[in-house]
Amino acid sequence: MEIKVGTNILAANDAIAAENREAFASHRCFAVNLVSSPGAGKTALLERTIEALHARLSLGVIEGDIATSLDAERIRRHGVPAVQINTGGGCHLDAYMVSRALAALALASLDVVFIENVGNLVCPAEFDLGEAAKIAVISVAEGDDKPLKYPVLFREARAVVINKIDLLPYTDCDLARLRDTALSINPALAVFEVSCRTGEGLETWYRWLADSAREWASSITP
Amino acid sequence: MEIKVGTNILAANDAIAAENREAFASHRCFAVNLVSSPGAGKTALLERTIEALHARLSLGVIEGDIATSLDAERIRRHGVPAVQINTGGGCHLDAYMVSRALAALALASLDVVFIENVGNLVCPAEFDLGEAAKIAVISVAEGDDKPLKYPVLFREARAVVINKIDLLPYTDCDLARLRDTALSINPALAVFEVSCRTGEGLETWYRWLADSAREWASSITP
Repeated sequence: MEIKVGTNILAANDAIAAENREAFASHRCFAVNLVSSPGAGKTALLERTIEALHARLSLGVIEGDIATSLDAERIRRHGVPAVQINTGGGCHLDAYMVSRALAALALASLDVVFIENVGNLVCPAEFDLGEAAKIAVISVAEGDDKPLKYPVLFREARAVVINKIDLLPYTDCDLARLRDTALSINPALAVFEVSCRTGEGLETWYRWLADSAREWASSITP
Repeated sequence: MEIKVGTNILAANDAIAAENREAFASHRCFAVNLVSSPGAGKTALLERTIEALHARLSLGVIEGDIATSLDAERIRRHGVPAVQINTGGGCHLDAYMVSRALAALALASLDVVFIENVGNLVCPAEFDLGEAAKIAVISVAEGDDKPLKYPVLFREARAVVINKIDLLPYTDCDLARLRDTALSINPALAVFEVSCRTGEGLETWYRWLADSAREWASSITP
């Protein structure tokens, strides 16, 4: 007898992810799963995005971390509800953790829920959380070969936010090569080139996000 | 009945890691396991270290990646034997993969074997490969809170190489805070502040590495 642990774990996860997806849909709440390496700037992107959009959209955040609640504290300073999940060593969020966090968020009153995954370019790409869109965030400081070396996330993602473009003059990263490599893996990717530090390029991202949330909500049949 | 999958996997891994450790010891070959986020600069650090040390030490490299053999090709250009392991989606190297790679390296003729793990700050920290020392590499572009958020690696490591200090003027990273946070988790850490781009700070790292290899080899009882 062979026990297919990996397959069973993913099947159990997918069943709960489907329930989460139904919960998000029933409240017309657009769920975004942000995935990146540690330190690519997911939290900074969230802070900027909240400041830009919270006047016209009602936002909530689920923060995933192995330890600490530093990120949830950063988010709450912007007046947005944030639920912290500590995975206690776990290298990714799974659908069950998110289902528990959803109980602490008033979904009915939210237009968009951001789920900030554990900083890890590998494992989070494999676990469906019930989100409407997976977004890859990558920093130019990581180098332009990363989509080739970590292809699964870029295949699964709807968009990639290339962050820290203000560092381009001081690194060997070739921005065009980074963008083309990501698109060679997934030609449907929306690509945004931004600096969360200077604000450059973020307007296009805000617009795409708000448009995507609206289009998704209007596609839901009640 | 409860199947403790995690425990069993780690026990099986530890048994093979012990065999690897014995193989390294029998050849007085110092094994170094490099762990970092994607893009922190492990391969660049290896390239610099090889250039600095290969005249006086015989070096070999095991390259771990999910996909591609880009890094092994970079290493071979420096005239050093490099074995590529592709994990095929796996988020870390394990002791079995390393044992297979060892068969392709002439350990008896090597003083130091570097094992470059998959770019991941989480999972590789949990898997013993049979190395003599685990080295954490972190880039200042990742921010100064990373040791707090990913503590396991910093607890397990013998040293941390803080890379890309040439980017400090252009980031919000507080170098002293990064160093102190790492040391608060593991006061025994050797800390190196370097730039693999400019070469700054690397001499101290080379010296520490060569000294550590020599001390370790002389501590082995035949």
